[in-house]
Amino acid sequence: MDGHPPDAALSGPIAISLGDPAGIGPEVIAKAWELRAREQLPPFFVVGDLAAIRTVWDGPLARIHDPAEAAGVFDRALPCLQIADVGEIVPGNPTLDGARCAFQALECATGLVRAESASALVTGPVSKAQLAQAGFTHPGQTEFVAERCGVSRDNIVMMLAGPGLRVVPLTIHIPFVQVPQVLTASLIRNRAVATVRGLKRFFGIEQPRLAMAGLNPHAGEGGLLGDEEITLIEPAIAALREEGVDIVGPLSADGMFTPRARATYDAALCCYHDQALIPIKTLCFDEGVNITLGLPIVRTSPDHGTAFDLAGRDHAHPGAMIAAIRMARDAEICRRAQADLV
Amino acid sequence: MDGHPPDAALSGPIAISLGDPAGIGPEVIAKAWELRAREQLPPFFVVGDLAAIRTVWDGPLARIHDPAEAAGVFDRALPCLQIADVGEIVPGNPTLDGARCAFQALECATGLVRAESASALVTGPVSKAQLAQAGFTHPGQTEFVAERCGVSRDNIVMMLAGPGLRVVPLTIHIPFVQVPQVLTASLIRNRAVATVRGLKRFFGIEQPRLAMAGLNPHAGEGGLLGDEEITLIEPAIAALREEGVDIVGPLSADGMFTPRARATYDAALCCYHDQALIPIKTLCFDEGVNITLGLPIVRTSPDHGTAFDLAGRDHAHPGAMIAAIRMARDAEICRRAQADLV
Repeated sequence: MDGHPPDAALSGPIAISLGDPAGIGPEVIAKAWELRAREQLPPFFVVGDLAAIRTVWDGPLARIHDPAEAAGVFDRALPCLQIADVGEIVPGNPTLDGARCAFQALECATGLVRAESASALVTGPVSKAQLAQAGFTHPGQTEFVAERCGVSRDNIVMMLAGPGLRVVPLTIHIPFVQVPQVLTASLIRNRAVATVRGLKRFFGIEQPRLAMAGLNPHAGEGGLLGDEEITLIEPAIAALREEGVDIVGPLSADGMFTPRARATYDAALCCYHDQALIPIKTLCFDEGVNITLGLPIVRTSPDHGTAFDLAGRDHAHPGAMIAAIRMARDAEICRRAQADLV
Repeated sequence: MDGHPPDAALSGPIAISLGDPAGIGPEVIAKAWELRAREQLPPFFVVGDLAAIRTVWDGPLARIHDPAEAAGVFDRALPCLQIADVGEIVPGNPTLDGARCAFQALECATGLVRAESASALVTGPVSKAQLAQAGFTHPGQTEFVAERCGVSRDNIVMMLAGPGLRVVPLTIHIPFVQVPQVLTASLIRNRAVATVRGLKRFFGIEQPRLAMAGLNPHAGEGGLLGDEEITLIEPAIAALREEGVDIVGPLSADGMFTPRARATYDAALCCYHDQALIPIKTLCFDEGVNITLGLPIVRTSPDHGTAFDLAGRDHAHPGAMIAAIRMARDAEICRRAQADLV
């Protein structure tokens, strides 16, 4: 499994939405900035509220009014585009004002990337429950960004990526019992095709290799342990292969994440949330990145939540945020290189 | 997570049933013997067919007629108790005669441990499909051993253990759609209690800490993503805590196998096969061990199958067999130390 991010520069800074100001977003963004030299991070700026960062961090902050100012100050201060004043922030205690700030930061950062004032979007962690209370009607940030990009939810794919493993959950935030109904031939087909496109476009993998997990133990063991493999997954895979997609499966899910197995594919398609997220979080907890495939822009986020219980204690690990910034840079460089070829 | 195997010796050699002679069992047993000094393995002997081992290995074999002879020859040859002559073995091509040999080896090895001629049982990998064709009516070796020990299947627990992680799948070889029906309060209760007993008895953990996974993504997120946590798992956990069991949960399954999370419990109870086996195989593929809790004897097995596609090529890794032998030794020493105290 390997992509080839070309050695090139970005056209502009990366925009990072703050996420919930009472979560660990402000802290991991600030810590990522502190490590910018060692981690060779490209210039980025936060969209959000300076005071929220100041609450948990006493490093240098620079208030900017235009993304174009970010690169100039990035060496000496963390650039922040102020879009809301949320008043007092108590880390770990989310508020409606904080959720509104998170939403506005997401909206503004997405708009800046759409307008090409920023090169790629990294989103900080939000609380879905808080956002919903503040009037946010989308299931999550991903769906919001898709809508702002004019892309149907059906055509986007959430991929989790870490060192040595990329996984795509074909169904996501639905109850366990609903998985067999929601997992359809067209869902498998659309997500697989979008995954192949995304691996080419954002990771520079010319001939992406997919592996698909079975739903049942041992991938059903020839029908003994369930028949969704026979009735649904095998035909879906056969149809994809006829379309020219390099895909194997259904594989026994418990055996497909060993080091040897991981080396044989570029992304694993999984039937449900935990089948995909258990292996990636088990292996790549501190550096897992969520990247949205199917968008006209690059959008990544660290694969962790607001961690309100951890906020304000200086215990949050910036590894996933750093990985998200890096992956955003590499994916955007890849995307542009290919757009230039067209 | 840590047990304290006392520094003591076994009362007799460990009996290893050969498993399917056309699988990788003979090879990994022989390779484990080759590494006996480096790995500090206790004396063991194979129950099965010398010729099957000879087919894949040209090291020294010693035919024994009584387990008591094993320790005397173990330094210079792999002791083998011949119980069947299966004729020509072609690695990778299972036969009915081979399956019968596997069954007789299992039966004999179990009997020797029951009779205390051997100290603990390690079972080599078999093919369930082949065994069934040869007239074996049990779902697997575990159930057969339980029956021979006079223990109900309901009271035994399959635990998979590797360095730093132990998992118990509460439901095992059933279709995905049946999991919510099969997972009942009494099943959770019985398996949890048997797991606590097993961790005390075989691992010497005085106050075992259990963690239980939710069934749904994010453990149901307060009922938004499924209600089995609220209706079933939370009450079952509350009842167990009232019984004095140290158990937390339901936890979000994707977050409970990170290094930090693993350090907080001695065993993870999982709702279904892949939820338990994905993390253990992802982390411990070459050294995962299956240990049966709830038996009067110690029984372990390497956490891999016959791997017919690999047999006879000298590619099989003996790590899991070595780990299974070691765990059998440590568990038996623990068990005896506690029996002596009573």
